[in-house]
Amino acid sequence: MMVGGVAGLLPAKRAGGHVHMQNTLSRDETAEVILTLTRQVLAAPDVSSAVRPLLEAFVQRTAADGGAFFQVDGSVFHARAAQGDMPTGPAMESILTHGLPGDTPLLRALTTSDAPIIVDDTSQSPETAGFPALGVASLAAVPVLDRQGTLLGAFLAHTFAPHAWTESESTFVAATTGTITGLTARLLAEEAAVAARDGALRALGMALDERDRETKGHTDRVTALALRLGRSLGLDERTLTALRWGAYLHDIGKVCIPDTVLRKPDQLDETEWRLIRTHPVLGQSFCAQLPFLPDDSLAVIRHHHEQWDGNGYPDGLAGEAIPFVARLFAVCDVYDALTSERWYKQAWTHGGALAELSSQAGRKFDPAIVVAFIELAPAPFPNGRTVAGRHLT
Amino acid sequence: MMVGGVAGLLPAKRAGGHVHMQNTLSRDETAEVILTLTRQVLAAPDVSSAVRPLLEAFVQRTAADGGAFFQVDGSVFHARAAQGDMPTGPAMESILTHGLPGDTPLLRALTTSDAPIIVDDTSQSPETAGFPALGVASLAAVPVLDRQGTLLGAFLAHTFAPHAWTESESTFVAATTGTITGLTARLLAEEAAVAARDGALRALGMALDERDRETKGHTDRVTALALRLGRSLGLDERTLTALRWGAYLHDIGKVCIPDTVLRKPDQLDETEWRLIRTHPVLGQSFCAQLPFLPDDSLAVIRHHHEQWDGNGYPDGLAGEAIPFVARLFAVCDVYDALTSERWYKQAWTHGGALAELSSQAGRKFDPAIVVAFIELAPAPFPNGRTVAGRHLT
Repeated sequence: MMVGGVAGLLPAKRAGGHVHMQNTLSRDETAEVILTLTRQVLAAPDVSSAVRPLLEAFVQRTAADGGAFFQVDGSVFHARAAQGDMPTGPAMESILTHGLPGDTPLLRALTTSDAPIIVDDTSQSPETAGFPALGVASLAAVPVLDRQGTLLGAFLAHTFAPHAWTESESTFVAATTGTITGLTARLLAEEAAVAARDGALRALGMALDERDRETKGHTDRVTALALRLGRSLGLDERTLTALRWGAYLHDIGKVCIPDTVLRKPDQLDETEWRLIRTHPVLGQSFCAQLPFLPDDSLAVIRHHHEQWDGNGYPDGLAGEAIPFVARLFAVCDVYDALTSERWYKQAWTHGGALAELSSQAGRKFDPAIVVAFIELAPAPFPNGRTVAGRHLT
Repeated sequence: MMVGGVAGLLPAKRAGGHVHMQNTLSRDETAEVILTLTRQVLAAPDVSSAVRPLLEAFVQRTAADGGAFFQVDGSVFHARAAQGDMPTGPAMESILTHGLPGDTPLLRALTTSDAPIIVDDTSQSPETAGFPALGVASLAAVPVLDRQGTLLGAFLAHTFAPHAWTESESTFVAATTGTITGLTARLLAEEAAVAARDGALRALGMALDERDRETKGHTDRVTALALRLGRSLGLDERTLTALRWGAYLHDIGKVCIPDTVLRKPDQLDETEWRLIRTHPVLGQSFCAQLPFLPDDSLAVIRHHHEQWDGNGYPDGLAGEAIPFVARLFAVCDVYDALTSERWYKQAWTHGGALAELSSQAGRKFDPAIVVAFIELAPAPFPNGRTVAGRHLT
């Protein structure tokens, strides 16, 4: 986020703003501009990038000194992108840190109106209470509403000097409403649905962690490890997503295995082992209910207990016949099991676990993947707990 | 889907087509048209409705007799919407039933090109093999690609008589690419993520059904019942969605309860009952990991064992202090438990279960909801199994 000094930049900016204001847009030109914006928004890789073209357009095509997009997050609105010169000072710092409260008069006004709000003098309008203290003299606010009329976010563009918004500027602001804002709303909906899908898949894996307090945190830790290793091995984003989902769900087949076996404090007998060894196949058939899961996710679920030498289960695959993501995941899964405490063993040290992985390279594990894993973490991961945390994601 | 007679409609349509073809669009007019289409697409409630404006535009603004949108679904493309006159006959029937195979030459060509394909004479182009047999003489095909370049769908517009596509028509078709098709791709992505989120939440509930073979199917049956009752009581779509998610997850807290208690073949003792009764609170705290879950979903999870007279758990709420969706769900949950077989009891008949619900109206249950439930199903639901099936959804 650019936060420029206000005083120093104002004169130059004013001049620039005036040049643009003379350049009034015809109706057809506005259509072209909106269409270009639409294409830019659609081409953006994420919502933060998608909202930038409109913010840039505000700065370039109106007198606005700067603008920001605020997105609702519970009861506050957080800035997700900004362009041009933004207000500075403690009040702005607070907004950047804590968000703009949803009961800010401007946001309340946007909630009850689906039209943009344009205010020439923020000190004269009750809707813009609070903005004069930020140094904002005039502003244009465009609501982003979902189809039920709920406010999802808002584009705010401001000037630091007093400014009477021209008809041409108002027309431009109005033209962005319904197209660019509608598109933004759909992108926000897509983003929310993607996050929710991911959260639900993670919760599915965590349901097992909940059942077995001893493996608590295993799903998150092993997922973070697998993603880090996958990234270092150059997997593309699509494969990483499939790997993440496979990691979440790798042991889901264990939901079908009774506690008496799963949590048995003694050694398992042969019948019980046979039951445990059904979990990859049960997991795969359970996950067949999720038609959107890619093949690589299912490969992790079915084949994470295969071994490089062919002595694993369920299919006894060997070497490169084992899907790559499953070979990769197996190394991470065993590392986390070794370095975690169990009722029957202490947690291994990082070094001890790496030595064990090395000794099994070419036997249980793909040797190239073991090398990559060790290169990734020649020193211990920053203590057991944070392996699952932000350091590795 | 309109499937009109070809021969009878052709002459009139040809005339119409020619009128439009004379009406060539300037660059600015095209921008206006695309912008209008964009607004219509954004305002549409679902993907099927969203693709219609472009199909209509093809029929109105080009010589196309008709057009359809095909969406990828595994290895085939299914028609999701059509406008104007469509081909008829056995080959078309087969496409409508089984979809257009992904290895159809045209779809393969669209996969390797991100530009529209326009063919004046389908009998002369290898890319349009198969189309002459449908009676399609000329066609325009516009690919819908995701950002990785994967083909998600295609707009196909056709004429039954030979037609040389004009430059104006080609310009219009090209102008829809990148804006309308990009927007369609994002809507498809949103739709897929929404479906995946729902599938994952359902799977989370089903994981419990898997663990306890005896309650197999309970999640789906009780969800279908609750939605049917909710709809009859006039709940809006947003509340119905929250109710569906709550129904999927109502017993998720049981993941924390060991098999020895959950599947105990004998009567539970007081300690075990106390453990069972923790499941609504455990479920709510587990589901707090899913920040997108609405309050009504959490209300179902926490309060589905409350009773109208205040004798339920976990909070001992009474009457209207119990959230409405939880009161509604409780009736469905008990109905399904009564009419299902358990190791300790036979399945009750529909009539017997309704009599039990009636006798508990005003005690366990909100009497108004019991009345609504009985009105919904004065006769038995069409046998136990299909209560969960399409009849009720």
